[in-house]
Order: sequence, then C-alpha cells, then structure tokens
Amino acid sequence: MKAKDMMDKNFLSVKAFDSIDEVSKIMEDHKRFTCPVVDDNNKLIGWVTALDITKGLRENNDKISEIMHNPEETHALYEKDSVREAVLEVSEDRVLDVPVFDDNEILKGIIRSFDIIDTFSELYETKVYKIYEAMQDQLKGVTWDELMKASAIVSTRNTGIKITPKEYDENIHEATFGNAVWATGGLENFFVGLISVGELVIARKIGQRRK
Amino acid sequence: MKAKDMMDKNFLSVKAFDSIDEVSKIMEDHKRFTCPVVDDNNKLIGWVTALDITKGLRENNDKISEIMHNPEETHALYEKDSVREAVLEVSEDRVLDVPVFDDNEILKGIIRSFDIIDTFSELYETKVYKIYEAMQDQLKGVTWDELMKASAIVSTRNTGIKITPKEYDENIHEATFGNAVWATGGLENFFVGLISVGELVIARKIGQRRK
Repeated sequence: MKAKDMMDKNFLSVKAFDSIDEVSKIMEDHKRFTCPVVDDNNKLIGWVTALDITKGLRENNDKISEIMHNPEETHALYEKDSVREAVLEVSEDRVLDVPVFDDNEILKGIIRSFDIIDTFSELYETKVYKIYEAMQDQLKGVTWDELMKASAIVSTRNTGIKITPKEYDENIHEATFGNAVWATGGLENFFVGLISVGELVIARKIGQRRK
Repeated sequence: MKAKDMMDKNFLSVKAFDSIDEVSKIMEDHKRFTCPVVDDNNKLIGWVTALDITKGLRENNDKISEIMHNPEETHALYEKDSVREAVLEVSEDRVLDVPVFDDNEILKGIIRSFDIIDTFSELYETKVYKIYEAMQDQLKGVTWDELMKASAIVSTRNTGIKITPKEYDENIHEATFGNAVWATGGLENFFVGLISVGELVIARKIGQRRK
C-alpha cells in the first residue's frame, strides 16, 4: 500500500497570516489536533498543533506565523512511498499526522494515526476461518471436516486442552487473526500451528492415496 | 494481550478545580493532547482535550470544571479487557486515548493510539525469515535450502517472475510481514503462499522417503 492510497486528500490547511483565534475555531469545529500551514501554491511552510495554539492564545500572539513549527521538523512522505514509512514515522516521532507530497513538493494529503490504526485493525479483524478457507482452496481435495479434525488434534496437542472439531469450527468463525496471534503468543506461533495442520492433512491425504 | 499490559500507568491527570491556564502549560510540557480529570480517589470525573483548552482560553473560562467533558462520552476499558477493545474504540470513535479502570472504577492507566500503533508495527515489522525459521523448525528434517528452493518455485509460479533460491533467501531477510502482506495482496494470500511452500517441501520429503 502506497502513501497515496491511505492519505486523506480533503485535509484542512491554513495560511501563515491567518489569526490564531480563527484557526483555533476551525480546528475545534473539525476536531483536528494538528494542521498544516501552506502558501498560495500549496507548498508546506509550517505546521501547528493544538498545543501551539494554547500557548499562542495564552501568550497573546496574533498570527499563525508567530507560532508555527518549521516543516523540516516533520518527516515527510511522497505519494509513492510505502505506508510502512508513515507507520515508522508515527511510531518513532509520535506525531499524529504525516504530510504527503507529490514530486513537486506540493502537499497532496495527510496520513493520520487513525488511518493507520484503521488499516491495521482491518488486518487484525480478519476472521481466522477466512485463512482456513484459503488454505482449503490451496490444499486441493481436502475437505473442511478433515481440516477441522486436524486442527482439533493439533490444538489439543499444543494446549493440552481437549477440543472437538465442531468446537474448533465454531471458534474460528468467531476468532480474528488478532485474537489468534495474541492467543498463540505471536505471529510465528500462529503460523506454526497452521503449518502443523497443513502437515497433518497432507500426510493423511498421501496416506489415503496409498491405500 | 490485556489492556493492563498495554496501558501507560504513569499518565498525567488533573483536577476539576485546576486552572485552565496551568493545565494548558502542563499539557504543552508533556506534549499531551488529552488529559483525564480525576477526583481525590482517582475516580475519573471528566476529560479535557487541547481543543477544549483552546476554546476555554478563547472564551476566558477559568477552571477545568467549566470546560471538561463528561467521562461517559469516553468508552472505557477494564484492565482485564482485551487490547482489541481499545483498538476498536480508537478506530470507531477516533479518540486519541482510552482510559483503563480496575474493578473498583479507579483509573489505572491510559492506552494511547501511539501504543496501539507501536504494538501493531512490531507485528508488521516481523522479518519474514523468522516465520520461515519457525516453519523449518516445525517441518522436522527439512533443510533451509529445500525451503528456499520450494519458495522460489512457488513464487515463480505465482508471479511469473523468475527468482532463484538465493535471491529468495536474500529477499526474506529484508522483507517484513507487513511488506509481504501488502505485496501478496492480503493476509490470506500470504498464508496461502506459505502453505504452498509447506505442501511442496512435505511432498518432496515424502517422495524422498519412498525412494
């Protein structure tokens, strides 16, 4: 996924000569904690946060130009950059929003920490049975029942807790990928569980073919 | 992962009778866009954001009690709740921070959107070769070379682009789980690719055993 695909193109921006008073009202109305400051060509010339605004109001500053940050303090992305860069930037520098530029340095969008969480949580919320469906599709000729049987065996073996194929089936219709990663203790463990299941059904399949 | 494991226990909190002026300085110093308002028993009685503060300053309010939100507007978590609830809350209600309580309704911590992104990005940043190492460990007797050979075959089959086992090996030492999910077009596809590799090495293993 590219920065271009995640960014909000309808972002709010203000001008350096705007009054702090006016901008504070705009940011409240739009519930924005940060806001880019652009020139007439949509080049980024500064950045203000709600905390710059509280300081400006308290100290009786007048114009945005008096309180804005230098844009160089904000790590920027280009439209074709990977979303991963935005994630690392938010995580490392703890910024709420990351500006996205085109090749001419024109501000084209903003990636918000919320957008990142939305994308991540979509992945986390993937139902485990969807992965099983894809797995069944790949392991041609293996039935859903065989998959559930193998999974119940692997699960009982790994956890020591008896579970029936029917219960397993019900569980994976409820459980999300996020649940599963946390429940198994990590991505590698989750995957190893799936490979064990694959191994078992493949061995059974080959065993039956030999008969 | 439980809310308790992710929450920041050293959170900033203020009192209803604190002055808006003082609280705005504290929030600026700590770079906090939101802040819980508690009573003397650490019960949550309100919530302020930097945007409440800008409004309060502009309208010459004096005390935090005049501008704070009702805590009921904020969806709360308990220490034993799953982190998943925090993710869904941030994603749905677009709040920056989620309060976490103990069973006596005492505020014990705050989960920030940054904490969520950190946890997610840790998962995303898992190197693909780590998953392969776990896979090799599970598929007892399969060598790394065999895994790389099978992966190069599956990759060439799926993408039409020729890749050598050596190149594949180099790639997975660079690539992260996040890269791989995006490159393959989604979580299910990524797992299906790995299952294909598993299928191939298992078939080869069984084939060799027969000789």
